[in-house]
Amino acid sequence: MTPVIERDLGALRARVKAWKQAGDVVGVVPTMGALHAGHLSLAAAARAVCDRVIVTIFVNPKQFNNPEDLANYPRTEVEDAAKLAPIGVDVVYVPDGATVYPDGFSTTVTVEGVTECMDGVHRPGHFEGVATVVAKLFTQTAADKAFFGEKDFQQLLVVKRMAADLDIPIEVVGCPTIREANGLAMSSRNLRLSKGGFETAALLHTELQGIAAGLRDGEPFAVLRDRAIEALNAAGYGEVEYIDLRGVNNLSLLWAAERPARLFAAVWFEDVRLIDNIAV
Amino acid sequence: MTPVIERDLGALRARVKAWKQAGDVVGVVPTMGALHAGHLSLAAAARAVCDRVIVTIFVNPKQFNNPEDLANYPRTEVEDAAKLAPIGVDVVYVPDGATVYPDGFSTTVTVEGVTECMDGVHRPGHFEGVATVVAKLFTQTAADKAFFGEKDFQQLLVVKRMAADLDIPIEVVGCPTIREANGLAMSSRNLRLSKGGFETAALLHTELQGIAAGLRDGEPFAVLRDRAIEALNAAGYGEVEYIDLRGVNNLSLLWAAERPARLFAAVWFEDVRLIDNIAV
Repeated sequence: MTPVIERDLGALRARVKAWKQAGDVVGVVPTMGALHAGHLSLAAAARAVCDRVIVTIFVNPKQFNNPEDLANYPRTEVEDAAKLAPIGVDVVYVPDGATVYPDGFSTTVTVEGVTECMDGVHRPGHFEGVATVVAKLFTQTAADKAFFGEKDFQQLLVVKRMAADLDIPIEVVGCPTIREANGLAMSSRNLRLSKGGFETAALLHTELQGIAAGLRDGEPFAVLRDRAIEALNAAGYGEVEYIDLRGVNNLSLLWAAERPARLFAAVWFEDVRLIDNIAV
Repeated sequence: MTPVIERDLGALRARVKAWKQAGDVVGVVPTMGALHAGHLSLAAAARAVCDRVIVTIFVNPKQFNNPEDLANYPRTEVEDAAKLAPIGVDVVYVPDGATVYPDGFSTTVTVEGVTECMDGVHRPGHFEGVATVVAKLFTQTAADKAFFGEKDFQQLLVVKRMAADLDIPIEVVGCPTIREANGLAMSSRNLRLSKGGFETAALLHTELQGIAAGLRDGEPFAVLRDRAIEALNAAGYGEVEYIDLRGVNNLSLLWAAERPARLFAAVWFEDVRLIDNIAV
């Protein structure tokens, strides 16, 4: 069944209130639209454990540090709603800019700690924008559970921290990264890759897997990283912002997989910023 | 009836959930304890329009820019609960430090605009501390209405802005300042005044009334202000941080009461920081 499109906050709240009075567990999947199989997997994860599922679509200007990236971000709302129909999503909530940031809006939610590396450094203001809009979407939807992809692993940690710190009564659930057949992590920004570039972009994941295999064989991380950067450069990649090995809980920098860790990368290719991360 | 003292967040939430399922409107009065007639008037205002009333007591370290002020802040929890009994408060919520700021806590709520003058300048970090803890108390209590005194008028605007911006479904109600017989605005910090100082401290309110009368007579604000500062100095007051005339909505600085305005003052006397404000 095609989900209801809801643009009005008051109407959304009335709907959720009625659900909750009936004892329903409500799940939310915050997105910026341009839905791909990764988003659909989040909606399906919500559908599996919640009585009611809301998918939000809002391209949040506050989390774009780059105006061009914001302007180029794909907007495909009609197609998005159609894609959600087979999953059984109840409501697609599409607030307009004035509903999210009315005149006079002047509040910012800031998370320290887990934001002080990687995308927190390379995308100034990004996580403040994320934390602020997600706090708002949590209070607007009053959902019981929220579903985020591990593809944006640092974002997942920021959102978990924010919700816990502000005592928002919601469980933040992380879901596995969904990949193309060639291994490329799904992302709305992949739409901007050329056809050949789409294949070459999968090399990032291949190289991360190579580093993980090397770590298992006891090779030093610094050597593995340099080798991966050389391979990316040889394939025509642009700037490598970071390829880091970090602890999964606090993102502390590691030089060996001595405790639960992940490999994180952000690299530029065909003027698209690709990010990926895998467990080691 | 003596209110229940609740220290556990989970138990508080269960209680509020049951109230809400019964359709009760829940009011909250956030305090730092050391309750005086001003606080009791807020509890009474809540009692008048809410089915259930929670008074919170938490001396919030994050809103003290001065460690000595924090150390000296009066703590009188047992007496506080007794004072609330005649009003018919349902629950006094007294979370401990770890319930409000557990290990790893790293989120800050910042409000721009109305914080960029007066106490926002003279007490660095103060309103971030207020906005953060009040956001938490709003989400912890899940109250429908919150009651704050106009004595801290700038704080009232900050809290209103924060709650609206973060879409917390709560109505923030401002209540009139309660004064001693001599006109001194009630404040927990007044306990630190000497007996004679208690009388002299009332001069601040007298001078604000004098400025308001002068404005009604068409005298220039700058002249009225200088005259008030001279009178305070002559009475042995210390630093005058500010005596400002400002618009009531956005705290823009005014030089005549050309639109809805208030007089705001912060002055030091006997090492106590006195604040007050009145409508003009």
